[in-house]
Amino acid sequence: MGSFVFHPLPQPGKVIMLSEEETHHLSVQRILQGTSVLVSDGKGRLYRGTFLEKQRSRAFVLVEEEIRCESPGFSLSIWQGFLKSPSRMDWLVEKLAEIGVTEIGFFPAERSVKEEVSQERVKRWEKVVLSACKQSGRIWFPLLRVFTSWKEFLSVLPGRRVFLADPLEKQRLSRALKEGGMLNSVGLVVGPEGDFTEKERRELLELGVQPVSLHQKVLRSETAALLGAFLLVTFLEDHHAGEH
Amino acid sequence: MGSFVFHPLPQPGKVIMLSEEETHHLSVQRILQGTSVLVSDGKGRLYRGTFLEKQRSRAFVLVEEEIRCESPGFSLSIWQGFLKSPSRMDWLVEKLAEIGVTEIGFFPAERSVKEEVSQERVKRWEKVVLSACKQSGRIWFPLLRVFTSWKEFLSVLPGRRVFLADPLEKQRLSRALKEGGMLNSVGLVVGPEGDFTEKERRELLELGVQPVSLHQKVLRSETAALLGAFLLVTFLEDHHAGEH
Repeated sequence: MGSFVFHPLPQPGKVIMLSEEETHHLSVQRILQGTSVLVSDGKGRLYRGTFLEKQRSRAFVLVEEEIRCESPGFSLSIWQGFLKSPSRMDWLVEKLAEIGVTEIGFFPAERSVKEEVSQERVKRWEKVVLSACKQSGRIWFPLLRVFTSWKEFLSVLPGRRVFLADPLEKQRLSRALKEGGMLNSVGLVVGPEGDFTEKERRELLELGVQPVSLHQKVLRSETAALLGAFLLVTFLEDHHAGEH
Repeated sequence: MGSFVFHPLPQPGKVIMLSEEETHHLSVQRILQGTSVLVSDGKGRLYRGTFLEKQRSRAFVLVEEEIRCESPGFSLSIWQGFLKSPSRMDWLVEKLAEIGVTEIGFFPAERSVKEEVSQERVKRWEKVVLSACKQSGRIWFPLLRVFTSWKEFLSVLPGRRVFLADPLEKQRLSRALKEGGMLNSVGLVVGPEGDFTEKERRELLELGVQPVSLHQKVLRSETAALLGAFLLVTFLEDHHAGEH
């Protein structure tokens, strides 16, 4: 697939105005006025349109027709405890979006050094997601969620098959997956630096979360999140491949 | 395993002088003069010693006895074409060291924007490797190699089982591994941004390198390197687990 620009609500027959960033993207791609352009809503729909004109660093595009619609094929959520280093969270967002996770969540844990994530950070992550999805040609973007409390985070776990990245556990994630079980909505929980407290771990287990090992050695928190995500994506893609 | 300090040549019965960085590490860990300290040579040996004294920001340690010796159990080389962004190479080094790759190599490819890697960068990577190995409690460090030419790089490939991260290929790496074949010395080659030229690709295939797919979508170069490395480490650990 070629490169696309993002707009939240493209509708065939309508003229849309692109953001400054997306207008800049057209210039970088050397797309000329009067020529064709691809537009996606980030929810799986791709449209063909015509780049009409540019006014005050905003491009206007006539949306012509929907040319593709795709869905992830599976639901995979990765939830990471707030990390001390914002740049490590930035790269985690980038990599998770790139490999095709459907939800990226961050939550405060007892041992999280940071207690909250700023609105500017979330805005930045939205740009990181957009860029990663363009890079990998993905027209549905992962949901970004920042939970404000541990309780709020716990409330989303029931009804899914959730794994816990647990350095104390012996059973490998790959083995746990081979044992079967629900695979339509899968999640992975990863603690902050210093991991979960015993109380938090117990609360997770009480909700049916399954502890698994990701590696023989102790990994950095965000490495565990990415590698676990990659194992899950690979497994889910293979598993659902027959259905598409 | 507890935290350790690095010294290139610890010998039982001898007094060694630590570098400034490693001396600083002792302070951060609040290890007091007269108490025990672990020392590793980064080649798989761990020693117990006594922190004798500090003079001009250098610590002196009496090495007492070797308490452990371990080897990687497999040989896994990841070779990445020079990337445009030094920080993306930095993080690749960190993550590859963390998950337990035994050789990390960078080489110039035709489409590499950068043509060389500075000595300062390599020094920086040595620190990144040390920190990642301490983090994951690994007492053998990966070999860092920077090739100065494509020819020099090609010369190390024969005699190993080498895979090529290839977006054009359909067969998955996981499937290729299940087909069996030599697993005592494995490598993965990943192109720079913009990937290999047709000529380079042909030269790799002529050397018996096996193209494999890592993911359904196109990944950033360093993401492909890390995820391929992780699949290989997981497979090799499982495969060699019975032998130890």
